[in-house]
Amino acid sequence: MNYQQKALEMHAQWKGKIEIASRAPLACKDDLSVAYTPGVAEPCREIAKNKDLVYSYTRKWNLVAIVTDGSAVLGLGNIGPEAGMPVMEGKAVLFKEFAGVDAFPICLATQNVDEIVDAVAAIAPTFGGINLEDISGPRCFDIEARLIERLDIPVFHDDQHGTAVVVLAALLNALKITGEKMGNLRVVVNGSGAAGIAITRLMQPLGVGDVVMLDTKGIIARSRTDLTPVKRQVAEHTNADNLAGDLKTALKGAHVFVGVSAANLVSRDMVKSMAGCRYVFALANPDPEILPDEAKAAGARIVATGRSDFANQVNNVLGFPGIFRGALDVRARRIDDAMKLAAARALADAVPADKLNEDFILPSPLDKSVPPKVAAAVANTARERGLARSIACNGNAGN
Amino acid sequence: MNYQQKALEMHAQWKGKIEIASRAPLACKDDLSVAYTPGVAEPCREIAKNKDLVYSYTRKWNLVAIVTDGSAVLGLGNIGPEAGMPVMEGKAVLFKEFAGVDAFPICLATQNVDEIVDAVAAIAPTFGGINLEDISGPRCFDIEARLIERLDIPVFHDDQHGTAVVVLAALLNALKITGEKMGNLRVVVNGSGAAGIAITRLMQPLGVGDVVMLDTKGIIARSRTDLTPVKRQVAEHTNADNLAGDLKTALKGAHVFVGVSAANLVSRDMVKSMAGCRYVFALANPDPEILPDEAKAAGARIVATGRSDFANQVNNVLGFPGIFRGALDVRARRIDDAMKLAAARALADAVPADKLNEDFILPSPLDKSVPPKVAAAVANTARERGLARSIACNGNAGN
Repeated sequence: MNYQQKALEMHAQWKGKIEIASRAPLACKDDLSVAYTPGVAEPCREIAKNKDLVYSYTRKWNLVAIVTDGSAVLGLGNIGPEAGMPVMEGKAVLFKEFAGVDAFPICLATQNVDEIVDAVAAIAPTFGGINLEDISGPRCFDIEARLIERLDIPVFHDDQHGTAVVVLAALLNALKITGEKMGNLRVVVNGSGAAGIAITRLMQPLGVGDVVMLDTKGIIARSRTDLTPVKRQVAEHTNADNLAGDLKTALKGAHVFVGVSAANLVSRDMVKSMAGCRYVFALANPDPEILPDEAKAAGARIVATGRSDFANQVNNVLGFPGIFRGALDVRARRIDDAMKLAAARALADAVPADKLNEDFILPSPLDKSVPPKVAAAVANTARERGLARSIACNGNAGN
Repeated sequence: MNYQQKALEMHAQWKGKIEIASRAPLACKDDLSVAYTPGVAEPCREIAKNKDLVYSYTRKWNLVAIVTDGSAVLGLGNIGPEAGMPVMEGKAVLFKEFAGVDAFPICLATQNVDEIVDAVAAIAPTFGGINLEDISGPRCFDIEARLIERLDIPVFHDDQHGTAVVVLAALLNALKITGEKMGNLRVVVNGSGAAGIAITRLMQPLGVGDVVMLDTKGIIARSRTDLTPVKRQVAEHTNADNLAGDLKTALKGAHVFVGVSAANLVSRDMVKSMAGCRYVFALANPDPEILPDEAKAAGARIVATGRSDFANQVNNVLGFPGIFRGALDVRARRIDDAMKLAAARALADAVPADKLNEDFILPSPLDKSVPPKVAAAVANTARERGLARSIACNGNAGN
């Protein structure tokens, strides 16, 4: 199938992948008087008295803004807010289809960090959550941190945490197969963008032995003087052995490779130089850091990629719909590391023990039984963490 | 029917009057590859090359933001963005139901003019138009003017222009019945809020003889020293006879009363003091400036109110859906006075000549044949004015 041509044809035919649907009938004057004036004044008055009631009388409880500035759309780079719109609409379709979440694209005409933070904070009253999307690093870290600080609704940069949750789920299931211990693993994360940073950060509460991260200049070590604040922080919490050098050096004796970088950066010899069962998660798209056949031939026991035509696809759609569903269901104030780890564990556990094998460590992205499981784990953890503002569940169907 | 109780019950049951619906199927992996990655990269690339294609490959062409800061919601005053949300959702329902427009509530957490303008400008790439709603005066005039200047999509403050269009349509049809001439009329507009200012402004291109406008301190005249910039401008273009004083003075010998003020401000004697056929549009809600029976008893030939339980209801839903439909259909850059007048004329003409009478000068707000007529007039006028960017019509159904 020629996706390029088909995608253009279908997008031209759809004229938009989302639309607004009405949930209130308007057949007669009475309907108008209840859904609009004069009746609508009543819920307005009640919310004015108690702002929390906006969650009961409006759609806020189920609305997520998908916010981009178009600075890092897919692998296409800084193509701007208009060109990012098809991706945001696609994401809205996935949100609705897999978790009943009403998500709406917000494509911003600014790439200035202060202006982005101000704009998102300004529109927040409409929404129950904010999904940041395709915003380039290192700006994305600052934008997310400032919005989390400023807002009382969850702010979640999916390119970071969604990817991290799915990668962690893959690793959890891989270890179920091999029996190796998390605490004994050295993980190499190649790529210091949004996903690389988030994966590295979340490896630590997961309990991995050590992480060594690389950017385009090589291993991130405390001795380097060219690090951004975010990488400086990474350097201080990783690379216990103070390694320096390139990817080849990093992989020697490492157990896990996580690539969020570019095509063909890993050779067979590099995989051979790894230790233990050799887990190779080569996630660069469309061409991975090493092809699965090559990695396996070099001794990797478990291989994952970002592609749907190979086994073990790391696809964000396994994460974000259920994560937001769970957070919205309990009106979580934010989505913390414990909730992300709970999502990763639930996602891993969604592969039944009797089906788990080297080529099936993650559920299919189309498996609709997955998001409710992830949602329940996220919601429960939010409650345990005191981050839930609503004990009652709003229901999983978005109705 | 007890609208208050019913409205609360239904809003609690609906849990939001709008939701997001998907227009793209997601039944299999191929669907995912067309609506989302990798296929979605193609429309992104095309739009990056030619920004105009965002109108072909995404929903922008049909999306309107309903923006409020909650500062003047219905007659409830400054109740804040959350409490304004039920009205914005209701408006979205009307947009969809009557004109197939996909409108989405944007309730802003700021009431600072600069911040509102910046936030709306920031989110504009998602939308084909901006409907400002329930923003208090005189801030609303400044906000609208600055956004019109800054954006290349229509920005329309419905409390101003939507109301003005419907009032003008009512007047046009009233004159068809009485045969009086527009140029001979003196119109009194009582109330200097968003609607009053817009009605006054649009009376001039309509060709009325003179307008006298009043605020809470009386007739707006050039001699007054307490006028805001907007009222100063009104003073310079109205009140040819330099009247000064109160509403009683203004109404003496006037032909038309338009009240956008408060209950019971007009007495029978004041109506009696008017001239000609005496047109009384007493639009204060829920209680008009004078009740229809009283106005008629005092000699008014044609009476309109804002209420659905009297004849001749001036209801904005007769205006905004068709106006935006027409503007979106031709990708109008803005909605100018000529387009508003065209909307008023089309709305007036939507009442068939053989049905037109003193108690039927405006179509029913539920008459779905009206918005397409208004839309066609607005679209045609936009073309004539050189404000249309698309010759092809996107269609009236929002599909």
